[in-house]
Amino acid sequence: MRISELGRRSGVPVATIKYYRREGLLPEGRALNPTTVEYGEEHIQRLRLIRSLIQLGGLSVARTREVLEAVDRPLDAFETLGVVHHALPAPSAEAKVKNSGAGDGPDSAADEAVSGAAAARVEALIEDMGWEISEASPHRPALAESLAALSRLGTDYTAEDLLPYAQLATSTANLDFAQFDGIEDRIALAERAVTLTVLFEPVVMLLRRLAQEDANHRRHDRRACTREAHPAE
Amino acid sequence: MRISELGRRSGVPVATIKYYRREGLLPEGRALNPTTVEYGEEHIQRLRLIRSLIQLGGLSVARTREVLEAVDRPLDAFETLGVVHHALPAPSAEAKVKNSGAGDGPDSAADEAVSGAAAARVEALIEDMGWEISEASPHRPALAESLAALSRLGTDYTAEDLLPYAQLATSTANLDFAQFDGIEDRIALAERAVTLTVLFEPVVMLLRRLAQEDANHRRHDRRACTREAHPAE
Repeated sequence: MRISELGRRSGVPVATIKYYRREGLLPEGRALNPTTVEYGEEHIQRLRLIRSLIQLGGLSVARTREVLEAVDRPLDAFETLGVVHHALPAPSAEAKVKNSGAGDGPDSAADEAVSGAAAARVEALIEDMGWEISEASPHRPALAESLAALSRLGTDYTAEDLLPYAQLATSTANLDFAQFDGIEDRIALAERAVTLTVLFEPVVMLLRRLAQEDANHRRHDRRACTREAHPAE
Repeated sequence: MRISELGRRSGVPVATIKYYRREGLLPEGRALNPTTVEYGEEHIQRLRLIRSLIQLGGLSVARTREVLEAVDRPLDAFETLGVVHHALPAPSAEAKVKNSGAGDGPDSAADEAVSGAAAARVEALIEDMGWEISEASPHRPALAESLAALSRLGTDYTAEDLLPYAQLATSTANLDFAQFDGIEDRIALAERAVTLTVLFEPVVMLLRRLAQEDANHRRHDRRACTREAHPAE
């Protein structure tokens, strides 16, 4: 197909396609003659992945190029997933607290102590769980920062407090991985990893909020019943 | 204490304290004489809650006033939690997809069909779970929107697909509620609800990402071992 059809079918404007090509994100099509270039289905698929990484994942063009290079290398599917997973921005409680102006006092020594303690708690948790996490994982410092932010607001979570949450996270991750079953193509796998991380996170959080609401109703009902059954109390 | 000390101890600038007082968020102190007003510990506590709602929760002054009025009413602690919980902004996949420009085609009839189907799936899930969710809950339409966003990108999740995730969310919500144990004071309870919702969500999400990374390593190791054990394959 010609570039105009590629634009129509992928939903990406032709000018953007040309930009992605110049930036080395999208491979050249096959030159039929000096003025006509032919594109294939693989270009549509590649454009969908670029779009997911940049627009859903919020990655820069440079970071997207790195991820695409990794996807193109003859890596194991699981290594591909690892690259995509590390590239996506992590949720952070730290940003919210910084934004609020809380905890940004002049006492940087105390601040460092809080950060150090939080990092140690993350390591203890990873060890307790027997998790295999690479040294370069961005999620390790991100979790430490979130815990430090909570500490600065007066709520300390120990590795022990977090353990049952980590166990439930393991069960959730097993469900997540079942979503990759049957996807063999590496580009499709990378695309699913972006969706699963960026778009499915709100779903998981909203299910937690609904479950919290239900738990709240149940506790309330139980109290009301107890009051009715023992009106004298 | 005088307003200057209230500012120092709460970490909120005096000008901001006066603004909150004018907006009816913070009750007046006790007038000792026409020019001197005395503030108590309850003002520090109230300022912390206002700060949590506005700066961590991202609520408007008007919405904060509504939440504070609810907290002041002689409600059951669980009703108080419900009010705070509904007031906080919900995570959304819809915003990310809108931002990406995907799925905003001119076909609004098809779009409505997708939204309707997503809403029906949320109702089916709530029924399957036996969850007690109020009609006014903002999390019901938020989840439907997130599912519709995923559908528009080509990934449909049925109520059945979501059921195991919802069951894990129930276990997580039970852990969350244990965090309220022993907190009797309604203001402290409201404050904890903000922290637990806004700041603990990134922690839960990061634990999921770490668990995903571990699951990925494990699968990779297993494949590598299988290859080594059967090199001819």
